[in-house]
Amino acid sequence: MSLIANWNFPTNIKIGPGSLKEIGQSCIDLKISEPLIVTDKNLQNNEIIQNLKNELTNSNFSLSVFSEVDTNPNDENLKEGLKKVRSGNFDGIIAFGGGSALDLGKLLAFMAVQELPVWEFEDLSDNWKKANNKGILPIIAIPTTAGTGSEVGRAGVLTDNLNKVKKVIFHPEMLPKRVICDPNLTLKLPKNLTAGTGMDAFAHCLEAYCSPGYHPMADGIALSGMKLVKENLIKAYENGENIEARTNMLSAALMGATAFQKGLGAIHALSHPIGAIYNTHHGTTNAVVMKKVIDFNKEHIKDRIEKLSMFLEIKNGFKGFTDYTQYLCKNLDIPGNLSEIGVKEDKLELIANMAIVDPTASGNPKELNFNNTLSLLKECL
Amino acid sequence: MSLIANWNFPTNIKIGPGSLKEIGQSCIDLKISEPLIVTDKNLQNNEIIQNLKNELTNSNFSLSVFSEVDTNPNDENLKEGLKKVRSGNFDGIIAFGGGSALDLGKLLAFMAVQELPVWEFEDLSDNWKKANNKGILPIIAIPTTAGTGSEVGRAGVLTDNLNKVKKVIFHPEMLPKRVICDPNLTLKLPKNLTAGTGMDAFAHCLEAYCSPGYHPMADGIALSGMKLVKENLIKAYENGENIEARTNMLSAALMGATAFQKGLGAIHALSHPIGAIYNTHHGTTNAVVMKKVIDFNKEHIKDRIEKLSMFLEIKNGFKGFTDYTQYLCKNLDIPGNLSEIGVKEDKLELIANMAIVDPTASGNPKELNFNNTLSLLKECL
Repeated sequence: MSLIANWNFPTNIKIGPGSLKEIGQSCIDLKISEPLIVTDKNLQNNEIIQNLKNELTNSNFSLSVFSEVDTNPNDENLKEGLKKVRSGNFDGIIAFGGGSALDLGKLLAFMAVQELPVWEFEDLSDNWKKANNKGILPIIAIPTTAGTGSEVGRAGVLTDNLNKVKKVIFHPEMLPKRVICDPNLTLKLPKNLTAGTGMDAFAHCLEAYCSPGYHPMADGIALSGMKLVKENLIKAYENGENIEARTNMLSAALMGATAFQKGLGAIHALSHPIGAIYNTHHGTTNAVVMKKVIDFNKEHIKDRIEKLSMFLEIKNGFKGFTDYTQYLCKNLDIPGNLSEIGVKEDKLELIANMAIVDPTASGNPKELNFNNTLSLLKECL
Repeated sequence: MSLIANWNFPTNIKIGPGSLKEIGQSCIDLKISEPLIVTDKNLQNNEIIQNLKNELTNSNFSLSVFSEVDTNPNDENLKEGLKKVRSGNFDGIIAFGGGSALDLGKLLAFMAVQELPVWEFEDLSDNWKKANNKGILPIIAIPTTAGTGSEVGRAGVLTDNLNKVKKVIFHPEMLPKRVICDPNLTLKLPKNLTAGTGMDAFAHCLEAYCSPGYHPMADGIALSGMKLVKENLIKAYENGENIEARTNMLSAALMGATAFQKGLGAIHALSHPIGAIYNTHHGTTNAVVMKKVIDFNKEHIKDRIEKLSMFLEIKNGFKGFTDYTQYLCKNLDIPGNLSEIGVKEDKLELIANMAIVDPTASGNPKELNFNNTLSLLKECL
């Protein structure tokens, strides 16, 4: 089966090996004549960005790059990026990289025309309606990892450096108008990132599927996304050059982020503050706490997980599924607990307090409060 | 579980009992001050449209209605509708009804600003790029049946009266900007329409799922859509007032149409010309030919159908699934063959010739040619 396709929801997506060559036409389609490339620090001299530059040069676009993006993008990165955006006549953003570059690229496109500070647009109630809609730059998102799914999301996560807290900034116009998913860009992804980002995709699908709320379309996407992860993540981990596995993981990633419009849950509610405090890798952190969170939610999700196990052809229902998540983590060399990624006991109360007010907490099947969240964290330690 | 939800893909959707009350705010959101209601002939005096009118009046909107829409909307309906649209200062279309009203409403919104004849925009190659994009009216779609899924589609089917052929007219801007799925509007749907439209939703999911092409997101939506049909269609048929079943069927309908962006197949390729020639009900016609088409495609879809059966908890794999489609048709009092809906043998060659050039034919897993299509039709007679 050919892996090259065009999809039209949740946005316009070009997927498949070689799809990067669509970048020139994509700029033309979106009436972008002066794009700003936003990318991760560690990609600025990587050979894969050279492919992007070559394509743009071949299509007669000038090359401007902003790459001051940390692993967990923060308000300092945003401030510097806005200086860059406002210094030129940029009329579109090409966000190229992992979740960090995609999120910051989207935030720059949005904030380019805002007068209010970014924290005014935190994803709470209808904050986004305070935004200026006019002139938000069109975004082309090109993921180089398969996990975040930020390429199909309408939000960006930004760390408040001063207060050491991650906040979700939301606006519908932050949804990229074009996504290009070229697996060739992911073939050389380091093994630990293949693992961590892949588990992020899995966590997105799993939490969306388990989150209460009526969204059978999201449920179906989440189920199929988890199946893709099951059939492809270990393959991609063991042989990074496996194009089919890499393409399927790109699909799983954007499916996870599409599905989680339904909701997320405690995996993310724990992972966000841990990432903000310890700068841990987001997807890896999700994977570390996954099994304990599933057990924590058991009474609310047992039936759903049993159906999921059947669909994924995993034996032994609920127990079989939690065993499977451990098998997956073990085969991907994911650290076994939070201590192994540097979390210390003295911060657990702080993390619990932050977790229960994280915007994703409300999507968890079981209500999170300080006490049960602290207990959960202790189990994960 | 609450059945009230807001979804954001493939477009903005308000679903759940009572969601019709969102119509006033929806017009405001879309900057519509003078909407034209487009509805089916047989709905113009129905009590459900009174609910819409009341909501609009309560929100201080004027009421204008165009209801000259036949069961299979045709170029004559379009011509009359365009006269109506151009006679006023309408700045938006509220398409309210079954697939016919939705399709014609969408076509009117699109054609309002076109200079080329409608047939120039048939869904072939890049015809849509010839269209004038500016000023296409925003569309609010409110389905009163659960089948077509036209409310989330970017195309409309129009019958060419002179040549007795159904053509698919496509433009991305024909996607409604807002969809309101209120199950209360479907509670009194006659049993035969509940059956026929419900089987249309099932056919959309099934053909999308079986169509070759790389679209795991569509596959997941299609799978879950079929599960909803399996769990709800007979319930809605037996007790039209079952709100949960009605809501789930509305979901299944829009999931089918979302999924079939991947492709359709021979069920639709046969059903379109049969509908054009005999004016049969589209969904019912789909149901009549369904089992024979699945058997026809067997060698190409056996594995997929076996997985589908597992997911739907149907025993006996491929055979179990075709048996299930017959069980479904029987319980919904669907006619047993094409003869029963008026198709005559002397038109089969004509139908075969039309089927193989229908835009949906290319999505069929097995290639359609005149001879195999004629044989298939004979089996369906």
